[in-house]
Parts: sequence; C-alpha cells; structure tokens
Amino acid sequence: MRRNRYDNDCTVFSPQGRIFQVEYAMEAVKQGTTATVGLTSKEYTVLVSLQGPAAADTSALPQRKILSVHPKLGLAFAGLVPDAQILHSHLCTQCLTYNLSYIGEMPVARLMTGLAIKMQAHTNRNELRPFGVGLLVAGHDSQGAHLYQAMPSAAVIKCRATAIGARSQLALRYLERHWNAFEHCSKEELICHGIQAIRGSLAQEQNLEIKLAIVGAAEEFRICDAAETQKYIEMSKRLDQEVSSVEALTEEETEEQTTSET
Amino acid sequence: MRRNRYDNDCTVFSPQGRIFQVEYAMEAVKQGTTATVGLTSKEYTVLVSLQGPAAADTSALPQRKILSVHPKLGLAFAGLVPDAQILHSHLCTQCLTYNLSYIGEMPVARLMTGLAIKMQAHTNRNELRPFGVGLLVAGHDSQGAHLYQAMPSAAVIKCRATAIGARSQLALRYLERHWNAFEHCSKEELICHGIQAIRGSLAQEQNLEIKLAIVGAAEEFRICDAAETQKYIEMSKRLDQEVSSVEALTEEETEEQTTSET
Amino acid sequence: MRRNRYDNDCTVFSPQGRIFQVEYAMEAVKQGTTATVGLTSKEYTVLVSLQGPAAADTSALPQRKILSVHPKLGLAFAGLVPDAQILHSHLCTQCLTYNLSYIGEMPVARLMTGLAIKMQAHTNRNELRPFGVGLLVAGHDSQGAHLYQAMPSAAVIKCRATAIGARSQLALRYLERHWNAFEHCSKEELICHGIQAIRGSLAQEQNLEIKLAIVGAAEEFRICDAAETQKYIEMSKRLDQEVSSVEALTEEETEEQTTSET
Amino acid sequence: MRRNRYDNDCTVFSPQGRIFQVEYAMEAVKQGTTATVGLTSKEYTVLVSLQGPAAADTSALPQRKILSVHPKLGLAFAGLVPDAQILHSHLCTQCLTYNLSYIGEMPVARLMTGLAIKMQAHTNRNELRPFGVGLLVAGHDSQGAHLYQAMPSAAVIKCRATAIGARSQLALRYLERHWNAFEHCSKEELICHGIQAIRGSLAQEQNLEIKLAIVGAAEEFRICDAAETQKYIEMSKRLDQEVSSVEALTEEETEEQTTSET
Amino acid sequence: MRRNRYDNDCTVFSPQGRIFQVEYAMEAVKQGTTATVGLTSKEYTVLVSLQGPAAADTSALPQRKILSVHPKLGLAFAGLVPDAQILHSHLCTQCLTYNLSYIGEMPVARLMTGLAIKMQAHTNRNELRPFGVGLLVAGHDSQGAHLYQAMPSAAVIKCRATAIGARSQLALRYLERHWNAFEHCSKEELICHGIQAIRGSLAQEQNLEIKLAIVGAAEEFRICDAAETQKYIEMSKRLDQEVSSVEALTEEETEEQTTSET
Amino acid sequence: MRRNRYDNDCTVFSPQGRIFQVEYAMEAVKQGTTATVGLTSKEYTVLVSLQGPAAADTSALPQRKILSVHPKLGLAFAGLVPDAQILHSHLCTQCLTYNLSYIGEMPVARLMTGLAIKMQAHTNRNELRPFGVGLLVAGHDSQGAHLYQAMPSAAVIKCRATAIGARSQLALRYLERHWNAFEHCSKEELICHGIQAIRGSLAQEQNLEIKLAIVGAAEEFRICDAAETQKYIEMSKRLDQEVSSVEALTEEETEEQTTSET
Amino acid sequence: MRRNRYDNDCTVFSPQGRIFQVEYAMEAVKQGTTATVGLTSKEYTVLVSLQGPAAADTSALPQRKILSVHPKLGLAFAGLVPDAQILHSHLCTQCLTYNLSYIGEMPVARLMTGLAIKMQAHTNRNELRPFGVGLLVAGHDSQGAHLYQAMPSAAVIKCRATAIGARSQLALRYLERHWNAFEHCSKEELICHGIQAIRGSLAQEQNLEIKLAIVGAAEEFRICDAAETQKYIEMSKRLDQEVSSVEALTEEETEEQTTSET
Repeated sequence: MRRNRYDNDCTVFSPQGRIFQVEYAMEAVKQGTTATVGLTSKEYTVLVSLQGPAAADTSALPQRKILSVHPKLGLAFAGLVPDAQILHSHLCTQCLTYNLSYIGEMPVARLMTGLAIKMQAHTNRNELRPFGVGLLVAGHDSQGAHLYQAMPSAAVIKCRATAIGARSQLALRYLERHWNAFEHCSKEELICHGIQAIRGSLAQEQNLEIKLAIVGAAEEFRICDAAETQKYIEMSKRLDQEVSSVEALTEEETEEQTTSET
Repeated sequence: MRRNRYDNDCTVFSPQGRIFQVEYAMEAVKQGTTATVGLTSKEYTVLVSLQGPAAADTSALPQRKILSVHPKLGLAFAGLVPDAQILHSHLCTQCLTYNLSYIGEMPVARLMTGLAIKMQAHTNRNELRPFGVGLLVAGHDSQGAHLYQAMPSAAVIKCRATAIGARSQLALRYLERHWNAFEHCSKEELICHGIQAIRGSLAQEQNLEIKLAIVGAAEEFRICDAAETQKYIEMSKRLDQEVSSVEALTEEETEEQTTSET
Repeated sequence: MRRNRYDNDCTVFSPQGRIFQVEYAMEAVKQGTTATVGLTSKEYTVLVSLQGPAAADTSALPQRKILSVHPKLGLAFAGLVPDAQILHSHLCTQCLTYNLSYIGEMPVARLMTGLAIKMQAHTNRNELRPFGVGLLVAGHDSQGAHLYQAMPSAAVIKCRATAIGARSQLALRYLERHWNAFEHCSKEELICHGIQAIRGSLAQEQNLEIKLAIVGAAEEFRICDAAETQKYIEMSKRLDQEVSSVEALTEEETEEQTTSET
Repeated sequence: MRRNRYDNDCTVFSPQGRIFQVEYAMEAVKQGTTATVGLTSKEYTVLVSLQGPAAADTSALPQRKILSVHPKLGLAFAGLVPDAQILHSHLCTQCLTYNLSYIGEMPVARLMTGLAIKMQAHTNRNELRPFGVGLLVAGHDSQGAHLYQAMPSAAVIKCRATAIGARSQLALRYLERHWNAFEHCSKEELICHGIQAIRGSLAQEQNLEIKLAIVGAAEEFRICDAAETQKYIEMSKRLDQEVSSVEALTEEETEEQTTSET
Repeated sequence: MRRNRYDNDCTVFSPQGRIFQVEYAMEAVKQGTTATVGLTSKEYTVLVSLQGPAAADTSALPQRKILSVHPKLGLAFAGLVPDAQILHSHLCTQCLTYNLSYIGEMPVARLMTGLAIKMQAHTNRNELRPFGVGLLVAGHDSQGAHLYQAMPSAAVIKCRATAIGARSQLALRYLERHWNAFEHCSKEELICHGIQAIRGSLAQEQNLEIKLAIVGAAEEFRICDAAETQKYIEMSKRLDQEVSSVEALTEEETEEQTTSET
Repeated sequence: MRRNRYDNDCTVFSPQGRIFQVEYAMEAVKQGTTATVGLTSKEYTVLVSLQGPAAADTSALPQRKILSVHPKLGLAFAGLVPDAQILHSHLCTQCLTYNLSYIGEMPVARLMTGLAIKMQAHTNRNELRPFGVGLLVAGHDSQGAHLYQAMPSAAVIKCRATAIGARSQLALRYLERHWNAFEHCSKEELICHGIQAIRGSLAQEQNLEIKLAIVGAAEEFRICDAAETQKYIEMSKRLDQEVSSVEALTEEETEEQTTSET
Repeated sequence: MRRNRYDNDCTVFSPQGRIFQVEYAMEAVKQGTTATVGLTSKEYTVLVSLQGPAAADTSALPQRKILSVHPKLGLAFAGLVPDAQILHSHLCTQCLTYNLSYIGEMPVARLMTGLAIKMQAHTNRNELRPFGVGLLVAGHDSQGAHLYQAMPSAAVIKCRATAIGARSQLALRYLERHWNAFEHCSKEELICHGIQAIRGSLAQEQNLEIKLAIVGAAEEFRICDAAETQKYIEMSKRLDQEVSSVEALTEEETEEQTTSET
C-alpha cells in the first residue's frame, strides 16, 4: 500500500471517497494471532475463540478474549485489547442503565445502535481515532438469538455466522460452505460447527486453546469450562467424520438454496 | 483528478470556489456495489434497492439498505453504512421527540430541514468530516407523498424520481425517459417502474436481490417480503413487454410535455 | 490566480490585507448556472431567478432558488444550496422568535444586521469557513420596500437593484442602464424590468424557466405560479418593443441624473 | 515585502518583536477607494467621508460609510465592511446595555476602552484574526467633544484630527498644517476644514460624493443631507480663497506654537 | 527503528494497524535502571523491586518504587516517575470515593477497569499522550489475591507472575520456569521466588537494594523494612541451593502441565 | 539572530531551555521610540517618560504613556499600546473589585501577583501569545512606596529604580551610578534624578516632551501638568551642575556601599 | 544535541521513549547563574541560595530566590522566574484553602502530591508546556522536617539534601560526601554544611550574596537577615578548618554506612 496524503486523519476523504485511517484501523483487528468465530441458530448463539497460552513476555494469565456483559449477552473480540475493554465497559454501563430505568433486559438491536453511534463518532472527529478492535456480540432477547459483528469502521451488522481476526479466512470459508445448516442446528451441532470452523486456523499452532461461550433462550451467557469444552471438541471430531461424508451432499443442496433464499 | 493544496479540509475553498472534501465524500456514495432508486406518484412513494448476497468476507446477513424510521417514513441509502446508521438514528430520534411534543407525525419537509442542518454542519467545521452517504427518504404526510434525496454536500432536495449509488446512471436514464408518467401511476405501476429502472444495473450480477419498500396515503411504510417482491418482479416483466411497445409513443409525448411543464 | 501561502485559512490576511478564503468563497456564488436578479421600487420588491430544469443527474424536481421566510419577506440565492438552506433556516427562526417576543413583523434592517453578524463570524474563526452563497433578500416593513444583498464576505448591503450568480454581468448592465427608472415603477413595470434584465443570461439556454417573486405594501411575499409568470413574460416582451424605442431617450436622461442624484 | 515564517498567525512575534498579521490587517484599511477624515473642536466633532457611487458590480445603493450609534455618538470607517458592521453592532449593544443599567449616555472614554479590549482579543488568539477595519468615532458627553481612532492593532487613541483609509496622506498633511486652528473653530469652520482636508483625495475622481456628520454639545449626531452638505461645500470653497490668503500667516504661528504646546 | 510518517500522534494508525506513539511509550517503561517483579499465590501477592541508591545527581532519598494505595492494595512501577504518581494518586482517590459511598474495600477488578478506561483515554485523544509508565498492582479482596499489570497501551491484564522494566527478561525467564509452583506457595516461598527472579538483573550492580511488599488474606499491604527484607534474602539464598537441586525435576513436570493446564 | 525550529510557539522550549517567542516579545518592548524611567525613595515613587509629539501619520493627540489606575497607583509602559491598554484595564478592574469587597486600597504586592499570573498564562498556552509590553507600576500602600517592573516574560519584579523601552541603556547607566542615593531622596531630588536619567535618550530628539508622574505617602498618583513639569526640568538643570561637581565623590562612596549593602 | 522530529511537543514520545520537551525544560532550570541548596536534618530544613546583585540591565532589587509559603513552609527555586511565581502562588492558595477547611497546617506530603499533579498536567497536554523551573520545598509538619525537590518533568521527590540550578555539581559533590552527617546535625551545623556546599559555585563570582532560610520544629520558616547570615558564614569558615581535618575520617565511615543504610 503506497503512502499518500489522505491517510493521516480520520476526517479526510481520499479523492476516491475512502477514509484511510478507518481502513488502517481494520488492520489492527488482524494484528492478533488468533481468529474468533460466531454462529447463531434460531435458539442459540455460540462464540468460539482461540486463546493463546500465557504471553511469554508477561507471564500473564491467558488473556480472556470472551467477556460477559449481562446474563443474556457477551462478546468476543479481536484487535487492541484496551479498546475492547473500553467498549466492553461501555456496553456493561448501557445495560445497567437500561435495567435501572426499565424492567427487563435491553433489546440487543437497541444496544447495538448505541454501540454504532459511539464507534462512528470515533471515525468522525479529528481529535479521536477509530477503535482498533472488532467485536462479535452474542445475545438473546425476546426477538430470539442475535449475533452482531462490530468493526472499526463502526459498521455494526447482524450476522448468521462470521469470523474476525488474524487468519479468519479459513474459518469464513467453512462457515460459508455450511451457511444454510446453522439455522436449524441443535445447540451441540452449532458448537461443533464453531469448533470445526476455527480449526482451520488451529493447525499450525497446537498450543492454542479453544474457548467456547453460549447463550440461548433457556441458557444464560456462559463461558464453558475446560471439561465441557473438551467434551465438545471430541464430539466435533466424531461429527467431523460423519459430516465429511455428508458434506458433498449438503454442498450441492446449498448451491441450490442460495439462489432461492438469499 | 490531480492532487492539490485545497483538498484536505472541508473548511477550505479552492480558488475556484469548490470544497474538495465535500466532492470526495460524494465519491463515497458511489463506492458501494448497488444502486438505489426512489419514485413518487401523487399517492405513493416507492424505494427500490439492490441488496447484495451475504458479504463473502463476513458471512453477514444481507445488509439492509432500506430502513424504517416511523410508520409513514423510511429511507434507503448508498455509501458508508455507519454514517447511514447515524443519520437513521438521528431521524428516528427527531420523529420520536416530535411525537412526544405534538400529536401526529412530523411533517416530512420539517424533518428534512433538520437533516440538512445537521449534515451541513459536517461540511463546515474543520474537526468533522462530511457524511459519506447518500439517502433517499420516502414519506407521506398531510401534504401527500414525498421523496427526498440527501447527499454528503448537505443538499437535501425534493425529487419526483431519482437514483443514487454505484452504476445509478442507467437507472437515472430510465427515470428521465419516463419522468412524466410517474405522477399519475397506480401503486403497482410505480413499483414496476422502479424495478425496471434498477434492472439496468442488475444485468451483470444476477445474484443481486431486489428489495422494495412502499409508503402511501393508505399504507404505512413497509418493506415488502420476498413473496410480494417476486410478485411485482414478475408483474414488471409482463409490463415490460407491453411498455416497450408503448414506449416509443410515450417518449414522443414526453418531449412535448417537457417544454411546457418543467 | 497563482497559488500562495495566505489562502488556506479565513483567519490569515495576505500582506496586501486581503483574505483569500473569503474571495474564493465569492467564487462559489458564481459556480451555479443561473443568475438571480432583485429590484425594488418605492412600494414593491421583485426577485427574478432562472430555474434550471430537473437536474439531469438526479431527476430532482427543479430546485427552488426562491424561498419564503415570513409573510412579508423572502429570498433568492446563488451558490451552494446547503449553505443557502442553513441561512434560510436561520432567518426563519429569527423571525419566529421575534414574533413570539413582540407583536408585528421584524424590521428588515434588524434582521439583516443579525444575518451579517452570523455570516461575519464564519469569516473570522479558523475552525469554520465562509458561507459559499449569495442571498438577495426582499422584504417589506413599516419603512417600505427593501432589497438586501448578502455575500460570503458577510457584506450585507441595501440595494435598489442588483444581480448575483453566474453570468450576472449582462443583467447588471441592464440594471445600471435603467437604474433611475425603478424607484417610481408600478408593480408590473418592475417585474418586466426584472424579466428583461435576466433575459441577458437566458439567450443561449432556452430551457431555463423564469421564476418570479414579489412583495409589497399590499401584498405578501409570493412566488408567482406558472400562469402568472407567463403573463408577465409576455407583457415584458410587449414592453420591450416600446421600451427599446423609448430607451435611447431614457438613457440620456439617466446620465444627467446620475451626477446630480447619486 | 518578502515572505517570512512569522506572518501566518497573529500569535507569533517575529524576532524583531513585530506581529505581521496585525500589520497586514492594517493594509486592509487602506484597501478601500476613499479616505475618511475626523476633526474635533472644543464643542463639535465632525466626520467627513467620501462615498463612492453605487458600486458598478452590485447596483447597490451607495454604501454608507458613516453610521450612527446613539444620539450623541457615531462612527465612520475604512476597510472591510462586514468587520465594520460587527464593531458598529457591538458599540450599539454596549450603549443600549449601559442605558438600561444607568440613566444617561455612556461616557465615550469608557465605551472606547471596551472596544479596545474586544479588538485586542482578536490580535491575541490563534483561532481569530484582527479586525480588518479602521474606525473614527465621534461622540460628545459631559467631558466635551471626542474623536477616537481605532485601528486593527487594537490601538484606540484620542485624536484632535485624523484621517484613515486609502489616499489619506494628503488629508493628513492638510490636518497637520492646520492642527492648532481646530480647537477654537466654530462648527462651520470645522466642517469647512474637514471638507478642505478630504478634497486632497478627491481631485482625480470627481464622481465621489462628500458625506458629513456632526455631533456637538447642543446637537445630536446627525448625518447631513445632500442640501446641507452642498451648502457647506460651497462655504468651504469660499473660505478656501480667504484661507489661502491667510494660510501663510497661520503656518508661521503654528510652528511657534508647536514647540510650546504639544 | 526507521522514522515514519505515522508516529507523531497517538490518534494515527499506521497502514499496518499499529499506533507507534503507544509503542514508543512502552519504551519509556524500559528506560529505568531496575526491574520490578510481581507474583501471586492463592493467598498472597508479592511485589519485589530493585531500588537504586540515592540518585547521584540529586542526593535524593532512594526513590520509592513501591507505593501503598489502601490497606489491601499497593503498586510497584517502572517508567516515568511523575506519570506513576498521577496514576497512584488516581487510584487512591478512587478507593477513597468508593469507601465513602459503600462500606468495605473496592473490588480490585472494578478498580482496574477504571484504571484501564483512564489510561485508554490517553491513547485516544490527540491533545494527550499515553502514560509512560507500567504498573504492577497487588491487591486482595473477597475474590482472593490479585496481581494486575497495566501498561502504557492501557492493557490492564491479570497475571499470576510477571516482571516489567529494564532488564526484566531474566526475571521473566525465571518466572516462566517456575510458573506452576506459585499457586500453592506459602508466603515465604513466594517471597523467595520473587527475590530469586529479580536477582537475574541484580548481578552486575551490587549496590541495588531489594524492596519487598506483600499483601494477603490475613495481612494488610505492607512494604517490608530492611531487617525483614534481609531475612528473606538470606532465606532465599538457602532455598536457592535446595531449589537448584530440585529444579531439574520441576522443569520436567512444568512442561507436562503446561499443555494440560494453560 | 538565526531562524530556528523552536521559535514559532510560546509552548516550545529550545534544546537550551529557552522560549524564543517570549524573547521576541521582549523585542516589542524596545520597538517604541522612547524610554520610560521609574525611581523610588522611601516615601515617593516617580515615573518619567518621554512622550512623542502627535504622531505624524494620525494627527492623534500625543499618546499617553502614563496611566492612572487608582488614587495611589499608576503605570507607565513601553511596547504595544493595545496590550498596555488591556493590562491597564485589568489592573483597574482588580482594584475596583478589591475595593468593593474590602475597605481600603489593594496592597500593591498582591495586585502584582495577580498581574504576574495573568501575564504568565500568556506564555504558557499555544493559542495565546505573550503580551508585547513592559510596564512600570508605581504605587503606595501601608508598606510604603513600591516600584514594580513587569515584562512580557511575566517576570514581575520589585525595583528601586529601572528603565525600559527603546534606548533605555543610557538611563539605566545613570540609575546604576546613583543607585544608593535614591532611598533617602526628597521628592524633588527624586524627580530631578528621573529627569536626569531620561535625558540620556533625549539628546538627539529635542521635540520629545517629558512627562512626570508621582505618588507618595501624602500624595495621590498624579501626572504633573506642563507647568509643574517645566519647573522640575529647570530645577534638575540647576542640580545637574551641582551634582556633577559632587558626583565624583558619590561614586566612590557607592562602590564601597555596594559590597556591604546589596 | 541533534535536532529531531520528536522534540516539538510534550505529547510526543521519541522512539526511545523520551519526551524531549520535558528534557529541554530541564535545561531552563540550569539557565540561571546561581545554584540553590537544600538540606534536612531530623529537626531542621535549611535552604541556601546564591542571590545575584541587582541585575545590571534592570536596576531591580536583588530578585528573591527564596519565598515563604506559610509559617512552616517555604521554597527556593532555579529557572524561569515567572513560572516559579505561578507555582509559589499555587502553593499559597492550596495552604490557605486547607487552613480554611481544616484546622492546622497542611501535611507537606499532601501538598507535594497536589503540586506533582499540577506540574504533570503541563507535561501531558499539547496546548501547554512544562514549567521551566525547579523548586526546593522546605517544610515542617507533624511528620517532622521535609525537603522536596520538584523538577519540570513533574518528578517531586523527597530528599535529604540536594542542589539544583546552574553549576550545582560542586554543591552536589559536597553533599554526597557528607550525606550521612546531616541526619543528626544541629541547626547550626546544618546551616554551615549548606554554606560549605554552595561555596563551590561561589568561587569565581565574589559579589554573589548567600541567602539562608530555615524551618524547624520550634521555628517558623524564616529567611535570615544579613547580620544572621554573616554570623553563620563566619561560623562555617571556622568549622571548615575543623571539618577538613575530620573529613578524611568521616569519608571512610560513610562508605561503610552506605552499604548498610541506603
């Protein structure tokens, strides 16, 4: 990418109508070492992230990439950790304020509108900078299960399944192949799909650990513990063999469905 | 377009009296892949947009390009999604506030004046940037049906029919040819004209999906579902054959009318 | 015009005492395609503007270049449409506020002082830019008929007759030739002078439409409809022939009067 | 004048202790085409300005260069018209506010202190620019007649007689020659001196019109109408012949007085 | 490190998504001469820092690198002393405010969230700069013992053991080797591990003095005095011999555990 | 003086710890044409300034360089007139406010502290500039007679005798020679010393007029009128002859005293 | 020192983590001509400064370098005088405010925390600059005697003995040699040590005058008058001879003590 005169400030459009500082902030999301995957069926939303070992240069506990916001909502992120903490903290405050003013949980769509406004302001004022973080927000409210993706450009969009972060391409390719399967998946199937999707980026670095979080109609947002995670990983391995035999079939169907449904 | 000294800030006029940052923001409206068309008859306003499939790199649900603001008002946009969300959110708040203070819906013209003021402020202060989005606002109030077009320059103008976004030229050409026909169209004819207009940009990318929204005296703002949309698409195909035979005729009439009416 | 070091900011004087950004903003007034003319007699003020056809690239309704502010006041503009909308909106608010605080219409001179202050602030702070629009304000109050011209430099001056915008030179030349005739014109004569004046810029582009607005002691500010406009256009054509025969005469008188009266 | 590094901002001193932006603003005062003269005797203050004809490019009424502030105070200016309007409006507000709080007219010296503070602030903050206008303020209060000169540098100084604006050198030379005569002049003599002084700049442009304003112990601030002005012009012509015969005499006296009195 | 265009402002992303000013602030943490180590077991948290002698150029008392915040919380820092003082003062105020509003000590996690928000704001506004200091915060609350590390990037992360500052690499290497031992250490063992860890950076500069601080379930945050410190130093020397014999063993175990536990 | 990178802003230190903008503002104090001298004995403070004739280019009254602040306080200045007016106005307001809150005159030292704070703020913020003026403040309060010198650097220091402005070197040399004589001078002697001191700069420009101001225990701050001034000038001439004979003597004494007293 | 890109703003870190503007401000502390020394025993704190003669270019009274803040606190400074006055004024206000809110003197440590916060803010915002002054603050409260050193970097540290300002190296060398002697010194001994220390910088400029200030448990902060000062200077000369004989001895002891005590 060549250097140019229009990339020092998020309030400057290039002659082509691009805002380079926003695009550079998108790069920050890819700086990490691990991908994050989110999937949603009719009743469940699952977040799967790869958590590195304790960082060698800090002896820190493994940095948590999945955070709980309120009983029915949580998020996973990729990119700058401090920016993620700010947005997490913002979401928590929003939910608490809503809870104090009204009875019941905040509708996810409304929370996301507020998030978009906050993030957009950072792409629109020359004394600030865009947030250098991408979020996957998983929530459940009276409208059902929700998965939102928020990026530094302040685009907050509803997804059925998505992946962000470094080396998320392989995960995305898996998700697109199985796109139509997710809607009617059971909770276990959804988790297994998530694990399968993220495995693409897992191959080379065996010491990465999979972290799972789930929220659903009947279940509060919960980060699975090591034992439960292990159970699903094994389940996914078993399914993998079954699926791989079924896959050829599904893929054909998918192609037909795409034209009629999307 | 050559680089020059006057294009880094929306508070700087070039010696020719142009504000380049505003012009660059207009380019952002053309960055998307799809056009958006709006038409208005005496009683109905129709928005037609092309909605891409789920973005390949995010597995997101097809991004909605048409948004409802209040029961009698909605908008379609082209350009930066987050900027559109901010303006959508602004319009919603304005309508709600009006509703709380007065009984009845906000007059569309008044809402548009407020939008113009908000957008103009972003072309007039060096710590901000113009909004990189174009809006088509369709509404109905006691004054009848309205179609407004709002562009990054903060020009908010009333239209009978218009198209914005990438490859909107073909749609505009169609609209100009049929300009005089719209005023007295029935609802179905208006929708069919909209579909015909947008088809120009549709040819090469068959997997784009048409989205329709309508608002009228007797109808609240409503985004048509897939079945209804399909119905109109087929209706428009049938009409196309009829129209194409009638068109030569109409076109002659149009040319006569233009001189006397515009 | 050569580039120089002093033209990037409206808070910088050049060594010759000029403020280039203000001068560049004046250029924006000339960017449009049509001129706007204003004339005032003792009892009437007339605004005449050329309104283009629906813009080919937007299918918009012909953009209104004459706007009503309150029953006895209106304006015509040339230059950036959004900036004109802001100032129009500002004037409306000022008049409303005055009406709420006092009984009766705001004196035009007082309104214009407020406008000058608002516009001057934009030539005097480095985070803003001058307004890129010229206004002709026609009003009537207890002091009689008024015509004011407001330019980006924030110069708001009282005129007897003036023209602004692209190709306004021919109109100005006509106005100067007939300068002394206006004061005692009847309403119809004044309108005909206005139409004659603007015709200079009309020659090459036959599809421009003339728009008329009038305000007077006995008449509220009113934009004439197509039929009435047509009536005056024809009247002006008839007069033209009479006048052109009288003109030689008048012109001689004028030159005598100039030295004694101005 | 060579370009240098210290002339872009009124908050930057050059190594020689000069503030170039202030000096450039002084140039703006000389940009106009006409000079403005002020003189004061013990009992009267007179402002004389040259008013151009209606500007050829706007058909505006001759722009007023002398403005009334309150019954016993008025001003003449040279330089940027909008900046003059702002300061005029500021002075009007100050006087009104004083009148509301106290009974009686504001002392001129106090008003001038406030003006100096306002103008100085514009030479002292980097987001503003100095006012590009010079004012002559004529007033009368319980302390007698006052003539003040306010320049862009914010220097507000009391004068016995002065001239500002383009080609004011000839007027100044006249004033200095007759310096000692003014104090005990009658009203008519003072006006005639003013007319004589400004005539220096009048020679080449015969179509400039002289404008007179006077304020005194027994007279409110008043801009003379055409007839009265004409009367004084003729009186001054008659005096001229008398004076020119007396002048040689006076001049000798003056030189003696200068050393003993100033 | 080559100079580049993106490193002058903490609101500018480089095309690779990095914020150089934040990275440069991280360098400030390494500017000091001494490392700081923190370790936590289930019940105790220990801070060990190397305190230089009185600075030769100020004759100051040895600068304290460990500061108490409230009875159950303290911190050690590396980097710019004044920035550390500001953050220390901020934490003290937060704790006091909490104490006045609620009964009981502030939960450490909540305090750390506030710290992260404050520090992040300094990486996000162009009129500020990131804090040039790294903190190790040791606290104990109803959730047990806590060790947090806060860096200029505003990353505030929970650690089991870590070291920051100049030449902290040797300390980190020791901590990683003994990683799994800490959790169940007794207070004395934990302190000895800390002393052992920091000794790596101690070798060349014998006149550095070790400072110890400890906080635990039954113990308030307390900086050990010289005598107690000396006692632990000797204890650690004795243990060193034992440990070095045991170490080979432990190291093997560690490698096994890492895969199953992290 | 060579141009350098550190002299554009009063918030930038050069690598040698200098603030060039402050030094350049000091130059502004020397820009005028006349020096100003202040001396204080135990009971009196005297200000002596050279006042030019009416400025040739403005016909202004001789600009007053000595201004009264309150009955027991006044100032003389050198440098930018508008900046002096601002500070004068500030001091007047401070004294009035004090008078309204407390009974009695403001202590001079306290007033000077406030002045220093105001002036220092202008050397410390990048949107302002240092004041380009030097002040000598003469006052008397319950602590006796005071002479303060305030410079653009915001250094406000108490003096026994000093001189500022253009060509003040000769005056300073005189003052230093007679340094020890001032303390016990009578009022007349003090004035004569002041006149003698300023005469150094007077030689070449005979048409400069001396202005005197005095304040003391028994006397309010008062600018002497022409007659009184003339009386002192002649007295000083007479003394001059006496003194010049005594001087050789005094000078020897002075040198002895310097070592023991300063 | 080479010029570089990172030294224009106190909000910019260099790639090595340094803030050059802060370092340049440290240079300002060394710009003066005289050193300032502070020492503290268990019961007394002494400030010794070299005060120049009346500045040759202002005839000012010798500028006071030691200022009293409240009965038990005072300061000495080196660097920019106006910045010192601001900080002195800030400390006075803080003490007064504390006195009004609570009974008793403000604890010195608390006052110093406030000072550090104020000074740090000036190293952390791009519209300000660091203070260009170093302070030695001597105080006594219920915790005993205190000596603090505050530098432009906002580092406020407690000292046993220190020296700042131009040519303070020699003084520092003396202080380090006698480091361990101070704690148990009597008041007289402490003063003599201070005088001895500062004499190093005194050699070449005999006309500098020593100024002493002392504060202790039983003594309010007091600047000694000339007579008392002279008494101590002679005492110190006498001691010097005794000490120089003892010194060799003490130095040996010191080296032993350093290892065990610091």
